[in-house]
Amino acid sequence: MENEKVEILLVEDNPNDVELTLHALKKSHLTNNIHVVRDGEEALAFFFGNPDNILDKKIPGPKVILLDLKLPKIDGMEVLRQLKGNPATKSIPVVVLTSSNEERDIVETYSLGVNSYIVKPVDFAKFVQAMHTLGMYWLMLNRPLQD
Amino acid sequence: MENEKVEILLVEDNPNDVELTLHALKKSHLTNNIHVVRDGEEALAFFFGNPDNILDKKIPGPKVILLDLKLPKIDGMEVLRQLKGNPATKSIPVVVLTSSNEERDIVETYSLGVNSYIVKPVDFAKFVQAMHTLGMYWLMLNRPLQD
Repeated sequence: MENEKVEILLVEDNPNDVELTLHALKKSHLTNNIHVVRDGEEALAFFFGNPDNILDKKIPGPKVILLDLKLPKIDGMEVLRQLKGNPATKSIPVVVLTSSNEERDIVETYSLGVNSYIVKPVDFAKFVQAMHTLGMYWLMLNRPLQD
Repeated sequence: MENEKVEILLVEDNPNDVELTLHALKKSHLTNNIHVVRDGEEALAFFFGNPDNILDKKIPGPKVILLDLKLPKIDGMEVLRQLKGNPATKSIPVVVLTSSNEERDIVETYSLGVNSYIVKPVDFAKFVQAMHTLGMYWLMLNRPLQD
Protein backbone atom coordinates (compact mmCIF):
# COMPACT_ATOMS: atom_id res chain seq x y z
CA MET A 1 0.00 0.00 0.00
CA GLU A 2 1.39 3.36 -1.02
CA ASN A 3 0.77 5.40 2.08
CA GLU A 4 4.01 7.35 2.08
CA LYS A 5 2.55 10.41 0.46
CA VAL A 6 -0.98 10.22 1.80
CA GLU A 7 -1.98 13.60 3.23
CA ILE A 8 -5.65 12.83 3.81
CA LEU A 9 -7.06 9.41 4.62
CA LEU A 10 -10.76 9.36 3.83
CA VAL A 11 -12.72 6.56 5.50
CA GLU A 12 -16.10 6.48 3.78
CA ASP A 13 -18.25 3.71 2.33
CA ASN A 14 -20.86 5.71 0.45
CA PRO A 15 -19.63 6.11 -3.18
CA ASN A 16 -21.54 9.36 -3.66
CA ASP A 17 -20.03 10.85 -0.53
CA VAL A 18 -16.54 9.73 -1.61
CA GLU A 19 -17.02 11.33 -5.03
CA LEU A 20 -18.35 14.55 -3.54
CA THR A 21 -15.57 14.81 -0.95
CA LEU A 22 -12.80 14.15 -3.48
CA HIS A 23 -14.35 16.65 -5.88
CA ALA A 24 -14.59 19.33 -3.20
CA LEU A 25 -11.06 18.77 -1.87
CA LYS A 26 -9.49 18.68 -5.31
CA LYS A 27 -11.34 21.84 -6.30
CA SER A 28 -9.48 23.61 -3.49
CA HIS A 29 -6.13 22.59 -5.08
CA LEU A 30 -4.77 21.79 -1.66
CA THR A 31 -3.73 18.21 -2.29
CA ASN A 32 -4.07 15.27 -4.63
CA ASN A 33 -2.68 12.89 -2.05
CA ILE A 34 -5.95 11.53 -0.76
CA HIS A 35 -6.33 7.85 -0.06
CA VAL A 36 -9.79 6.32 0.30
CA VAL A 37 -10.70 3.24 2.32
CA ARG A 38 -14.25 1.91 2.33
CA ASP A 39 -14.74 0.29 5.71
CA GLY A 40 -13.37 0.23 9.23
CA GLU A 41 -11.34 -2.92 8.68
CA GLU A 42 -9.46 -1.32 5.78
CA ALA A 43 -8.92 1.81 7.86
CA LEU A 44 -7.29 -0.15 10.67
CA ALA A 45 -5.29 -2.23 8.17
CA PHE A 46 -3.91 0.99 6.71
CA PHE A 47 -2.20 1.67 10.02
CA PHE A 48 -1.75 -1.68 11.70
CA GLY A 49 -1.95 -4.30 8.96
CA ASN A 50 1.31 -3.87 7.08
CA PRO A 51 4.91 -4.41 8.15
CA ASP A 52 5.87 -1.23 6.31
CA ASN A 53 3.24 0.78 8.06
CA ILE A 54 3.24 3.62 10.51
CA LEU A 55 4.15 1.42 13.45
CA ASP A 56 7.68 1.31 12.10
CA LYS A 57 7.71 5.08 12.57
CA LYS A 58 9.45 5.37 9.22
CA ILE A 59 6.45 6.64 7.34
CA PRO A 60 4.60 9.72 8.53
CA GLY A 61 0.88 9.29 9.04
CA PRO A 62 -1.58 11.36 7.04
CA LYS A 63 -2.02 14.98 8.11
CA VAL A 64 -5.65 14.24 8.88
CA ILE A 65 -8.05 11.30 8.88
CA LEU A 66 -11.63 12.03 7.78
CA LEU A 67 -13.75 9.36 9.40
CA ASP A 68 -17.35 8.48 8.74
CA LEU A 69 -19.16 6.81 11.65
CA LYS A 70 -21.49 4.40 9.88
CA LEU A 71 -19.13 1.93 8.23
CA PRO A 72 -19.30 -1.74 7.20
CA LYS A 73 -17.38 -4.45 9.11
CA ILE A 74 -15.95 -2.23 11.86
CA ASP A 75 -17.76 1.02 12.62
CA GLY A 76 -16.14 4.44 12.84
CA MET A 77 -16.45 4.66 16.61
CA GLU A 78 -14.36 1.51 17.02
CA VAL A 79 -11.81 2.77 14.49
CA LEU A 80 -11.56 6.01 16.49
CA ARG A 81 -11.20 4.06 19.75
CA GLN A 82 -8.30 2.02 18.35
CA LEU A 83 -6.53 4.98 16.71
CA LYS A 84 -6.74 7.13 19.85
CA GLY A 85 -5.93 4.20 22.12
CA ASN A 86 -2.65 3.39 20.38
CA PRO A 87 0.44 5.53 21.14
CA ALA A 88 1.63 5.06 17.52
CA THR A 89 -1.48 6.69 16.06
CA LYS A 90 -3.09 8.77 18.81
CA SER A 91 -1.40 11.99 17.68
CA ILE A 92 -2.78 11.85 14.13
CA PRO A 93 -5.68 14.31 13.85
CA VAL A 94 -9.03 12.58 13.34
CA VAL A 95 -12.02 14.56 12.10
CA VAL A 96 -15.34 12.76 12.24
CA LEU A 97 -17.26 13.68 9.10
CA THR A 98 -20.76 12.36 9.41
CA SER A 99 -24.42 12.97 8.71
CA SER A 100 -25.19 12.22 12.36
CA ASN A 101 -26.15 15.14 14.52
CA GLU A 102 -27.00 12.82 17.41
CA GLU A 103 -25.85 14.04 20.81
CA ARG A 104 -24.85 10.50 21.76
CA ASP A 105 -22.37 10.24 18.87
CA ILE A 106 -20.96 13.69 19.58
CA VAL A 107 -20.47 12.97 23.27
CA GLU A 108 -18.86 9.60 22.61
CA THR A 109 -16.43 10.78 19.91
CA TYR A 110 -15.22 13.71 22.03
CA SER A 111 -14.85 11.38 24.96
CA LEU A 112 -12.66 9.09 22.83
CA GLY A 113 -10.46 12.06 21.92
CA VAL A 114 -11.61 13.04 18.44
CA ASN A 115 -9.92 16.24 17.26
CA SER A 116 -13.01 17.65 15.59
CA TYR A 117 -16.59 16.69 14.71
CA ILE A 118 -18.20 17.93 11.52
CA VAL A 119 -21.77 17.36 10.39
CA LYS A 120 -21.75 17.07 6.58
CA PRO A 121 -23.65 19.99 5.09
CA VAL A 122 -26.50 18.72 2.91
CA ASP A 123 -26.33 21.66 0.50
CA PHE A 124 -23.75 21.07 -2.25
CA ALA A 125 -22.19 24.55 -2.25
CA LYS A 126 -21.94 24.52 1.54
CA PHE A 127 -20.32 21.09 1.41
CA VAL A 128 -17.68 22.32 -1.04
CA GLN A 129 -17.02 25.37 1.16
CA ALA A 130 -16.76 23.16 4.24
CA MET A 131 -14.20 20.88 2.56
CA HIS A 132 -12.20 23.93 1.51
CA THR A 133 -12.08 25.28 5.06
CA LEU A 134 -11.28 21.80 6.39
CA GLY A 135 -8.44 21.35 3.89
CA MET A 136 -7.01 24.81 4.58
CA TYR A 137 -7.09 24.15 8.28
CA TRP A 138 -5.61 20.65 8.52
CA LEU A 139 -3.24 20.76 5.55
CA MET A 140 -1.99 24.34 5.69
CA LEU A 141 -2.46 25.62 9.23
CA ASN A 142 -2.26 22.75 11.67
CA ARG A 143 1.22 21.56 12.60
CA PRO A 144 1.17 17.76 12.67
CA LEU A 145 3.51 15.67 14.77
CA GLN A 146 5.65 14.74 11.81
CA ASP A 147 6.08 17.55 9.32
CA MET B 1 -17.27 36.42 35.43
CA GLU B 2 -19.43 36.66 32.34
CA ASN B 3 -18.54 33.47 30.55
CA GLU B 4 -22.03 32.60 29.36
CA LYS B 5 -21.54 33.98 25.89
CA VAL B 6 -17.82 33.38 25.45
CA GLU B 7 -17.19 31.69 22.11
CA ILE B 8 -13.41 31.94 22.14
CA LEU B 9 -11.25 31.90 25.24
CA LEU B 10 -7.86 33.38 24.42
CA VAL B 11 -5.11 32.52 26.91
CA GLU B 12 -2.22 34.85 26.07
CA ASP B 13 0.06 37.06 28.16
CA ASN B 14 1.79 39.10 25.47
CA PRO B 15 -0.24 42.33 24.97
CA ASN B 16 0.87 42.69 21.35
CA ASP B 17 -0.20 39.13 20.54
CA VAL B 18 -3.55 39.70 22.28
CA GLU B 19 -4.12 42.87 20.26
CA LEU B 20 -3.14 41.21 17.00
CA THR B 21 -5.30 38.13 17.61
CA LEU B 22 -8.37 40.17 18.58
CA HIS B 23 -7.86 42.44 15.57
CA ALA B 24 -7.56 39.49 13.20
CA LEU B 25 -10.55 37.62 14.63
CA LYS B 26 -12.78 40.68 14.70
CA LYS B 27 -11.79 41.53 11.14
CA SER B 28 -13.33 38.20 10.10
CA HIS B 29 -16.68 39.27 11.64
CA LEU B 30 -17.10 35.79 13.06
CA THR B 31 -17.57 36.73 16.69
CA ASN B 32 -17.18 39.49 19.24
CA ASN B 33 -17.53 37.05 22.10
CA ILE B 34 -13.86 36.62 22.85
CA HIS B 35 -12.65 36.53 26.43
CA VAL B 36 -8.97 37.07 27.22
CA VAL B 37 -7.10 35.73 30.22
CA ARG B 38 -3.44 36.58 30.75
CA ASP B 39 -1.94 33.61 32.56
CA GLY B 40 -2.49 29.94 33.30
CA GLU B 41 -3.96 30.56 36.72
CA GLU B 42 -6.68 32.79 35.27
CA ALA B 43 -7.35 30.21 32.56
CA LEU B 44 -7.93 27.46 35.11
CA ALA B 45 -10.00 29.81 37.31
CA PHE B 46 -12.24 30.50 34.30
CA PHE B 47 -13.30 26.86 34.37
CA PHE B 48 -12.74 25.64 37.87
CA GLY B 49 -12.66 28.72 40.08
CA ASN B 50 -16.24 29.90 40.17
CA PRO B 51 -19.37 28.26 41.58
CA ASP B 52 -21.31 29.40 38.50
CA ASN B 53 -18.80 27.92 36.13
CA ILE B 54 -18.81 25.11 33.64
CA LEU B 55 -18.61 22.42 36.29
CA ASP B 56 -22.27 23.07 37.03
CA LYS B 57 -22.90 22.06 33.42
CA LYS B 58 -25.32 24.97 33.17
CA ILE B 59 -23.07 27.16 31.10
CA PRO B 60 -21.64 25.88 27.85
CA GLY B 61 -17.89 26.14 27.51
CA PRO B 62 -16.35 28.24 24.77
CA LYS B 63 -16.38 26.76 21.26
CA VAL B 64 -12.60 26.81 21.29
CA ILE B 65 -9.74 27.67 23.63
CA LEU B 66 -6.68 29.31 22.05
CA LEU B 67 -3.81 28.51 24.36
CA ASP B 68 -0.32 29.98 24.38
CA LEU B 69 2.34 27.73 25.92
CA LYS B 70 4.65 30.24 27.58
CA LEU B 71 2.49 31.76 30.30
CA PRO B 72 3.13 33.32 33.72
CA LYS B 73 2.21 31.51 36.95
CA ILE B 74 1.00 28.24 35.39
CA ASP B 75 2.29 27.37 31.92
CA GLY B 76 0.15 26.35 28.98
CA MET B 77 1.21 22.72 29.10
CA GLU B 78 -0.11 22.39 32.65
CA VAL B 79 -3.35 24.18 31.70
CA LEU B 80 -3.76 21.71 28.82
CA ARG B 81 -3.04 18.77 31.12
CA GLN B 82 -5.74 19.89 33.57
CA LEU B 83 -8.35 20.71 30.92
CA LYS B 84 -7.87 17.40 29.09
CA GLY B 85 -7.62 15.45 32.35
CA ASN B 86 -10.99 16.64 33.67
CA PRO B 87 -14.18 15.02 32.32
CA ALA B 88 -16.01 18.37 32.66
CA THR B 89 -13.64 20.15 30.27
CA LYS B 90 -11.90 17.47 28.19
CA SER B 91 -14.38 17.78 25.30
CA ILE B 92 -13.79 21.52 24.78
CA PRO B 93 -11.52 21.97 21.74
CA VAL B 94 -8.10 23.34 22.65
CA VAL B 95 -5.86 24.83 19.96
CA VAL B 96 -2.32 25.57 21.02
CA LEU B 97 -1.31 28.85 19.38
CA THR B 98 2.36 29.41 19.94
CA SER B 99 5.59 30.69 18.51
CA SER B 100 7.25 27.39 19.45
CA ASN B 101 8.09 25.04 16.64
CA GLU B 102 9.96 22.73 19.00
CA GLU B 103 9.36 19.04 18.43
CA ARG B 104 9.26 18.44 22.18
CA ASP B 105 6.32 20.83 22.64
CA ILE B 106 4.46 19.37 19.66
CA VAL B 107 4.91 15.79 20.85
CA GLU B 108 3.85 16.62 24.41
CA THR B 109 0.75 18.63 23.51
CA TYR B 110 -0.52 15.92 21.13
CA SER B 111 0.19 13.33 23.78
CA LEU B 112 -1.94 15.32 26.25
CA GLY B 113 -4.80 15.36 23.74
CA VAL B 114 -4.61 18.81 22.17
CA ASN B 115 -7.09 19.18 19.31
CA SER B 116 -4.75 21.17 17.11
CA TYR B 117 -1.33 22.85 17.18
CA ILE B 118 -0.70 26.07 15.31
CA VAL B 119 2.59 27.92 14.98
CA LYS B 120 1.81 31.66 14.88
CA PRO B 121 2.77 33.05 11.48
CA VAL B 122 5.29 35.88 11.89
CA ASP B 123 4.06 37.76 8.81
CA PHE B 124 1.10 40.03 9.66
CA ALA B 125 -1.05 39.24 6.60
CA LYS B 126 -0.46 35.52 7.08
CA PHE B 127 -1.40 35.83 10.75
CA VAL B 128 -4.70 37.55 9.86
CA GLN B 129 -5.43 34.83 7.26
CA ALA B 130 -4.62 32.11 9.78
CA MET B 131 -7.00 33.59 12.36
CA HIS B 132 -9.71 33.81 9.72
CA THR B 133 -9.32 30.13 8.80
CA LEU B 134 -9.16 29.20 12.48
CA GLY B 135 -12.32 31.15 13.27
CA MET B 136 -14.20 29.72 10.28
CA TYR B 137 -13.20 26.23 11.29
CA TRP B 138 -13.91 26.22 15.03
CA LEU B 139 -16.84 28.65 15.11
CA MET B 140 -18.68 27.77 11.92
CA LEU B 141 -17.73 24.23 10.95
CA ASN B 142 -16.85 22.23 14.03
CA ARG B 143 -19.77 20.85 16.03
CA PRO B 144 -18.99 21.33 19.72
CA LEU B 145 -20.40 19.14 22.46
CA GLN B 146 -22.93 21.77 23.50
CA ASP B 147 -24.37 23.70 20.61
